[in-house]
Amino acid sequence: MRRVAIIGAGMTKFGEEWEKGFRELVVEAGIRALDDAGISGEKIDAGYIGTMASGRLIGQEHIGGLLADYMGLNPIPITRVEGACASGSLALRQGFMAVASGMKDVVVVGGVEKMTDLGITAVSDILGGAGDQEWELFLGATFPAIYALMARRHMTEFGTTEEMLAAASVKNHKHGAKNKYAQFPHEITMEQVLNSKMIADPLKVLDCSPISDGAAGVILVPLDHAASYSKKPVEIIATAQASDSIALHSRETLSGLRATQVAAKKAFEMAKMTPKDIDLAEVHDCFSIAEIMAIEDLGFFEKGKGGPATLEGKTSLEGDIPINTSGGLKACGHPVGATGVKQAVECVWQLRGEAEGRQVKDAHVALSHNVGGSGATAVVHIYKN
Amino acid sequence: MRRVAIIGAGMTKFGEEWEKGFRELVVEAGIRALDDAGISGEKIDAGYIGTMASGRLIGQEHIGGLLADYMGLNPIPITRVEGACASGSLALRQGFMAVASGMKDVVVVGGVEKMTDLGITAVSDILGGAGDQEWELFLGATFPAIYALMARRHMTEFGTTEEMLAAASVKNHKHGAKNKYAQFPHEITMEQVLNSKMIADPLKVLDCSPISDGAAGVILVPLDHAASYSKKPVEIIATAQASDSIALHSRETLSGLRATQVAAKKAFEMAKMTPKDIDLAEVHDCFSIAEIMAIEDLGFFEKGKGGPATLEGKTSLEGDIPINTSGGLKACGHPVGATGVKQAVECVWQLRGEAEGRQVKDAHVALSHNVGGSGATAVVHIYKN
Repeated sequence: MRRVAIIGAGMTKFGEEWEKGFRELVVEAGIRALDDAGISGEKIDAGYIGTMASGRLIGQEHIGGLLADYMGLNPIPITRVEGACASGSLALRQGFMAVASGMKDVVVVGGVEKMTDLGITAVSDILGGAGDQEWELFLGATFPAIYALMARRHMTEFGTTEEMLAAASVKNHKHGAKNKYAQFPHEITMEQVLNSKMIADPLKVLDCSPISDGAAGVILVPLDHAASYSKKPVEIIATAQASDSIALHSRETLSGLRATQVAAKKAFEMAKMTPKDIDLAEVHDCFSIAEIMAIEDLGFFEKGKGGPATLEGKTSLEGDIPINTSGGLKACGHPVGATGVKQAVECVWQLRGEAEGRQVKDAHVALSHNVGGSGATAVVHIYKN
Repeated sequence: MRRVAIIGAGMTKFGEEWEKGFRELVVEAGIRALDDAGISGEKIDAGYIGTMASGRLIGQEHIGGLLADYMGLNPIPITRVEGACASGSLALRQGFMAVASGMKDVVVVGGVEKMTDLGITAVSDILGGAGDQEWELFLGATFPAIYALMARRHMTEFGTTEEMLAAASVKNHKHGAKNKYAQFPHEITMEQVLNSKMIADPLKVLDCSPISDGAAGVILVPLDHAASYSKKPVEIIATAQASDSIALHSRETLSGLRATQVAAKKAFEMAKMTPKDIDLAEVHDCFSIAEIMAIEDLGFFEKGKGGPATLEGKTSLEGDIPINTSGGLKACGHPVGATGVKQAVECVWQLRGEAEGRQVKDAHVALSHNVGGSGATAVVHIYKN
């Protein structure tokens, strides 16, 4: 199996991008990744694209064919991969395999979602398709409700407080304020979060990631070819994916995601590392409680200690383990199919020392963690410079 | 890169399966494939599932997570792959890479679609998302219209007749009549096709594949592990995928699919073979004209000679190159995400000598050809016993 490196990374601004269509977003991100790698499209010999729900959001399936066309890459193969909000990471994982197997030498991996062309009710219903349509969504359980159940359970078991949840959002906005690609590049206060509109008790609107448009892309090559490209390569030293039941009612626990735990264990084994070796991580904070659970499930903090650690600033830029330097899903935005690839882009920038005002000092190893739905899929990647 | 073999294959009956849901269909096919391989689910270490439009057809995305759950395979990773009507073959291709790369040892690949819960107008609109939503579907071009344009062009350039098109349907029903899994296991006559209702001139309803429910599955292992399993292994000796523009108006020609031509060339190179080495092929006959173009684009017949060859019986079970022994999409049915995997299942059965009344004599090498939409994606696999 060949070792795999990222030699180019790029993304669009995330946000309500009403003047750009789905096609423009992904082409913009793809061109930025190519430019960053210093190569032209003719070098590419395969592509993977993660997108969750283009069929329902814009009436368009067959996104691989569409993008081969609009990126001017015909006749090379481009394949769409879907795993709800983890679609981007799954695309990265397939790209990794294509290069690792020896079948492909230069692979573009993209993630994209165009979500703001529909109203919130329609989008909530579409996102609900990431959970169990028959046993959750049909009965009214949209995602804020599902994560609220997990938050309540975490509070009951470990004494996690609403302030601890809010601290994740406050910290992510502080990071996002330093990211020019972020949907909400401004700070918020603890009081603003706690006083914001209740969505599904105990989650308020500022505990929730937004609905967003955006795209991100990276270019993969075998590590031993990477020296011939212009940018310092970032190696993907681990990729792992795990599954859990799609409906909450079948889970052993609600206060953590088993899929994250399994994927993390496999990723650390593959990288021959432990959580202590990670210098920064992008984790899946679709809701504030999701970040608290993630930093526990990934092994950065003991189960139940994620809330206090967040409140104490241990996950801030200056803390023990900076989490979501990009601003996370909360402040950077969450165009669902793009998120996993955006996480990889942020890790690349950090490991190259290009993260501007939010640079983590002496960053050598980064981790990304991307969740599909309420945790039926989790994907972990580890990167090294 | 490791060599990859299929050691198990199974499928559901294709048809209007109103008493089975999406989950039941795919579990049934998966269990049949596992039973055929003589292994239990615990042996599986990854899965890929092809489905085109579960989001719009049944309100459910995140099919990988759903199936890991419903097949009892948690926490192993299952990933959904989508390329319109080529989704099944793309899943097979990703499964191939997972095994070839050395990352996974026993991989289940499935394809599924549940299409008959909605009315024909809704389904036509959803299928239209496999073409260019903005430049074709929005303006009224559903798939029969798109393929009718190709048929007219083929007739103009090469003198292909309505009888030649009809001969593909008649032949496929003759084959399908011998397949207990077929949606329409009965013969039809040339007169019936020619007198059937006009859908998009020159294509009549009996030139068109149906809307179907169904699922299919195969089990992949490294070839050098295959001897330890019960069934005679069938090696996948080539996998190739290519792209073309998603809208017809950007193509160089309408009388053939460039993506098929490119994918076929790459597949034959990978297999170190020529079309003459193929003993039988399952090709993508979503419409009768699609089969005529496919057998030309794949190199079995010169461009323009596919129609006469079909009328003369050269593609029948007793002909030079038996095409669509399963009955093809026309008679066996076309649950879109399942079709590519079903093609692999038929090839496996033929190469094992288990194709009952439709067995091709001395079959050693088979080819499958699966198209996404009107040809923006084409996938070719070659199998050897």
